[in-house]
Amino acid sequence: MTVRVGVMGATGYTALELIKLLLRHDQVEIVALTSRQEGSPPISQVHPQLTGRLELPLENLDLNQLASRCDCVFSCLPHAASAVSVAQLLAKGTRVVDFSADYRLTDVSVYESWYATKHPDPDRIGDVPYGLPEWFGEAIPDAELVANPGCYPTSAILALAPLLQAGVIASEDVIVDSKSGVSGAGRTPKLATLFPECNESFTAYSVGKHRHTPEIQQVLSTLAGHEVDLVFTPHLVPMDRGILTTAYARRRGMKSASAMQDILRDAYNNAPFVRILDDPPATKNSAHTNYCDLAVRVVGERVIVISCIDNLIKGASGAAVQNMNLMFGFPETLALV
Amino acid sequence: MTVRVGVMGATGYTALELIKLLLRHDQVEIVALTSRQEGSPPISQVHPQLTGRLELPLENLDLNQLASRCDCVFSCLPHAASAVSVAQLLAKGTRVVDFSADYRLTDVSVYESWYATKHPDPDRIGDVPYGLPEWFGEAIPDAELVANPGCYPTSAILALAPLLQAGVIASEDVIVDSKSGVSGAGRTPKLATLFPECNESFTAYSVGKHRHTPEIQQVLSTLAGHEVDLVFTPHLVPMDRGILTTAYARRRGMKSASAMQDILRDAYNNAPFVRILDDPPATKNSAHTNYCDLAVRVVGERVIVISCIDNLIKGASGAAVQNMNLMFGFPETLALV
Amino acid sequence: MTVRVGVMGATGYTALELIKLLLRHDQVEIVALTSRQEGSPPISQVHPQLTGRLELPLENLDLNQLASRCDCVFSCLPHAASAVSVAQLLAKGTRVVDFSADYRLTDVSVYESWYATKHPDPDRIGDVPYGLPEWFGEAIPDAELVANPGCYPTSAILALAPLLQAGVIASEDVIVDSKSGVSGAGRTPKLATLFPECNESFTAYSVGKHRHTPEIQQVLSTLAGHEVDLVFTPHLVPMDRGILTTAYARRRGMKSASAMQDILRDAYNNAPFVRILDDPPATKNSAHTNYCDLAVRVVGERVIVISCIDNLIKGASGAAVQNMNLMFGFPETLALV
Amino acid sequence: MTVRVGVMGATGYTALELIKLLLRHDQVEIVALTSRQEGSPPISQVHPQLTGRLELPLENLDLNQLASRCDCVFSCLPHAASAVSVAQLLAKGTRVVDFSADYRLTDVSVYESWYATKHPDPDRIGDVPYGLPEWFGEAIPDAELVANPGCYPTSAILALAPLLQAGVIASEDVIVDSKSGVSGAGRTPKLATLFPECNESFTAYSVGKHRHTPEIQQVLSTLAGHEVDLVFTPHLVPMDRGILTTAYARRRGMKSASAMQDILRDAYNNAPFVRILDDPPATKNSAHTNYCDLAVRVVGERVIVISCIDNLIKGASGAAVQNMNLMFGFPETLALV
Repeated sequence: MTVRVGVMGATGYTALELIKLLLRHDQVEIVALTSRQEGSPPISQVHPQLTGRLELPLENLDLNQLASRCDCVFSCLPHAASAVSVAQLLAKGTRVVDFSADYRLTDVSVYESWYATKHPDPDRIGDVPYGLPEWFGEAIPDAELVANPGCYPTSAILALAPLLQAGVIASEDVIVDSKSGVSGAGRTPKLATLFPECNESFTAYSVGKHRHTPEIQQVLSTLAGHEVDLVFTPHLVPMDRGILTTAYARRRGMKSASAMQDILRDAYNNAPFVRILDDPPATKNSAHTNYCDLAVRVVGERVIVISCIDNLIKGASGAAVQNMNLMFGFPETLALV
Repeated sequence: MTVRVGVMGATGYTALELIKLLLRHDQVEIVALTSRQEGSPPISQVHPQLTGRLELPLENLDLNQLASRCDCVFSCLPHAASAVSVAQLLAKGTRVVDFSADYRLTDVSVYESWYATKHPDPDRIGDVPYGLPEWFGEAIPDAELVANPGCYPTSAILALAPLLQAGVIASEDVIVDSKSGVSGAGRTPKLATLFPECNESFTAYSVGKHRHTPEIQQVLSTLAGHEVDLVFTPHLVPMDRGILTTAYARRRGMKSASAMQDILRDAYNNAPFVRILDDPPATKNSAHTNYCDLAVRVVGERVIVISCIDNLIKGASGAAVQNMNLMFGFPETLALV
Repeated sequence: MTVRVGVMGATGYTALELIKLLLRHDQVEIVALTSRQEGSPPISQVHPQLTGRLELPLENLDLNQLASRCDCVFSCLPHAASAVSVAQLLAKGTRVVDFSADYRLTDVSVYESWYATKHPDPDRIGDVPYGLPEWFGEAIPDAELVANPGCYPTSAILALAPLLQAGVIASEDVIVDSKSGVSGAGRTPKLATLFPECNESFTAYSVGKHRHTPEIQQVLSTLAGHEVDLVFTPHLVPMDRGILTTAYARRRGMKSASAMQDILRDAYNNAPFVRILDDPPATKNSAHTNYCDLAVRVVGERVIVISCIDNLIKGASGAAVQNMNLMFGFPETLALV
Repeated sequence: MTVRVGVMGATGYTALELIKLLLRHDQVEIVALTSRQEGSPPISQVHPQLTGRLELPLENLDLNQLASRCDCVFSCLPHAASAVSVAQLLAKGTRVVDFSADYRLTDVSVYESWYATKHPDPDRIGDVPYGLPEWFGEAIPDAELVANPGCYPTSAILALAPLLQAGVIASEDVIVDSKSGVSGAGRTPKLATLFPECNESFTAYSVGKHRHTPEIQQVLSTLAGHEVDLVFTPHLVPMDRGILTTAYARRRGMKSASAMQDILRDAYNNAPFVRILDDPPATKNSAHTNYCDLAVRVVGERVIVISCIDNLIKGASGAAVQNMNLMFGFPETLALV
């Protein structure tokens, strides 16, 4: 059986990476690409990397057309816009992996306060599995809709969840200092992401108010079984891809770094995409892959966990394919190694 | 005497570099910065680098106000718009260094064909010195208006003019293959200069149809004393600053590379900003300076001259200050070394 | 049948890319990795990207051991050293793809003059197919040894060969101006490729004396059927990967750019990895792929062909896998799309 | 009076920046450059940027020669080697600014434990002013020797000292998460700083054990008047220059971010090189300058101070010139704005 897949909002960087992964997947066929572009330009006009690899137009399809063509749709639409379309696709029986933040938060009021908009599909919120298979893998095979995680949350949750669950770090005063390549800021031209502004520069942004804060907090709290309190600071690195998160938590008890490392190894023993390293990871080693690399140190009373992912792969499109694999009964690693 | 200077169109990269150079110049005072921005934001809001260094607002001044405040105005306006303002400033007795292409070409029809617009001040064209002091230095001290050269033309003309004048290279079939940092593309957000598009990429653009082609051709022809014919190909390098031009010309006669180098040395003997090197230059060594580095090789029947400049300094703002120094009787190198 | 493959000299960048491609190839098994490193460290210690993906040590194997384990060996050894090992492997019946320059040139004296060394296996020279399947594909399936092309030559030959064969460009006074990412300079630490030396810089090097010059010249001459004469200038771009070559040739006859483009399309009609584009290519669009992108322009009497490849893939390891596919009867594109 | 200055160990990046600053300083003359290089190559051979700007050889001078030529020597020698030379220069009456760590720490045993070497001049330790004029400016004018601060310490101390002194942040559990450009790693070729290793990558290193840790701790403790306890994590950013430090401290009392900002403004009211910003700083805005940019936020119970400096200027050579200016009675900002 070949799964017929579509991509909504196919002009951005995550969509491009998604399409490249799907082209390597021998159990799916890409049958629809949507955008609100004029005309129906071939996808290779918007993404020249795809020249000779995918002969499909970007179409301004309505949701009936899309649903009738596809068994599974990946939504790369912006938040709020995404939920509107997702709800209609689900109603027509098409399964969806949603890249937007619309179904990640379980509390509508938290969503509406951080995203400053009404939620278009509030009733479904809270019933949608969070698409981090390393922690929520059981709920994914049967899901009609999966909420694909944010890039920063993936890097922070994979780093901290095992130690929180094991009770060896405190759940208050956690500090998540993250650094991301510029592709995370999207493909819409703006001054802040112009080459001569970002290149040879490093900056912090949205300090204490980035929208991924409640997502990290909620998921870690769920996994820890009690409220987790943290400060999240994102930074922009002059590179295309990769996130490195340096997470600082207070040690509870006297576990050594080596014991902490064992906890990480146990937690991810069956996770094909998490690698526990002895040396601090570099983003280059997980770039263009679906791996998350982790290393841990104890310095004084602080436990430091460092994680690296490719923000567009494990932080977005790779995770989405991993989720789709589980939803459709394929091996979890198909097209991803 | 302190020269009161103003900058028209102060929001771009060349204006920023110009302002930083002028702040080091102890014979000038910056008294006006214009733009069409709303309100009158302090310049440091648009250029954070200037925080604490220059307390001036960006003003939407009319040309009467500007002329009354300034002895000299640098115009960083786009072509066509620049000539409109320049003409009025000159009429009021204010001297001008024009960064735009409006007064560089001496033939109105060539201008109008390459720039696809009517020239707003056609009568003045042809009477304005070309602001490359290494070759046109005598005309600059008395000029009311100087046409500041384009960045690519500066790199090509300094490389080729001495050998053309000496008759040791042919004037037909010259190839100018240039590579520029991204700041040359300006500060207006567009997809092509977004960080994730340019970074880790190298591309050619405007092959055979870049607007600097007729400028290079005209100035080299003037200096050679006969028509020079060339192909010009610009490329974009993933770096902020710098142009390297690799110019290929056919050898006339049997001069060695060393003899060619002597010709370059003689030509620039009194030019404080041209350095003749033995090894191929790297853009890094002239970045953030007003120097042009040159090296020459002979390979078979081709003479290869390689030049490096900082596109924003020797290719724009440094040259402008060098011109102003000559116009106002200051030492040529003031604020530039 | 699974082909058992080995990699000699597995510590460099081309070896790393080769291994990653081979891991995606379902008809081969990597069984040996050699280097002269002390001990037998796991490959992931030298290439952290391979952590969890390949559990093999780097071994200091003798050639008997290597030959007995492998059906096919990829040699990533330096020139001269490579031929010594290759000759012995062939004698034992192991087939080889040689990344070095040792078997590319067909004239021993040209080799010895450009590489300043005695050739260790001179008798075989001239009988080894040049591993550019787009042009020499017929000789590869039966070859015991294939000479994998240089990165710059691949970019230049694919650009120029069709037009030379069609007689629409002249074979003298060709100019090949190439720009490469820094990974092409290898992984041995040296000042010239230190980050703060290369970053934010662009430079020419080995002007007129790069060792790829005779290789480009020889292969183009073979394909053209007469002597081709060219100047080759390599440059270093501050990026990891990619080569863009701007090739300038004199037009013979009056063919338009569009007719030239048709000649390219016809030549590569059956070549799965060559793409003919309308717009000038950017290295980013072929990076991390085995594609070569080509575009052509006519400017005055010059034909300009621009080509882009990933120097480590189509310029080295991808081409090697493509050759191995042909040697062992696999589909040419296996593991490469 | 012109001060005759020399630079010991003139081949690295800090020496290059130092020389460029000194060339702009109209009250000093560079009279000696030392290194252990063979022969006496002109400095421009090692630093091509200096071509035509400084005609001095790199000499293998003994300390008698150096002392007799110079009123002031800047030592860019490695730690331990530096103290040996510094002691002899001081004995001969030459004043010194020492870039190494040899005289920064006041406790010999701390030095010997972190630097794993005997201190060659232990008696002087503790009597040498720490060359951060913003905090120790009074001791510098009369000093024969100044210990120029480390780059990371400068960024951390300027960020945290005012708030510690004001008692509005706690002195335990401070987290200093710093990110540096690659020039900070020096100019000696090694794998870790090769372009293709660093570019498109971001990594942490020396987590919890970087040698700047005790320096930050000691100076902040001195300024706070009580022991300060912190965790320091350095990271490597793919750019040439700049350090951004994100410092997290626990809030004591209820001061708002705005009140914290006022404390910073008051502390640096007379410091010409510290700028207090409203928005998070970017390294680009202080690159190539002697400025330190600071911004502060309060998030939950954490105060976050972000600082940016150019690691080679305010973090090394600019600070050294600032110190020399004070030592010789020049205006503090001479040659630095």
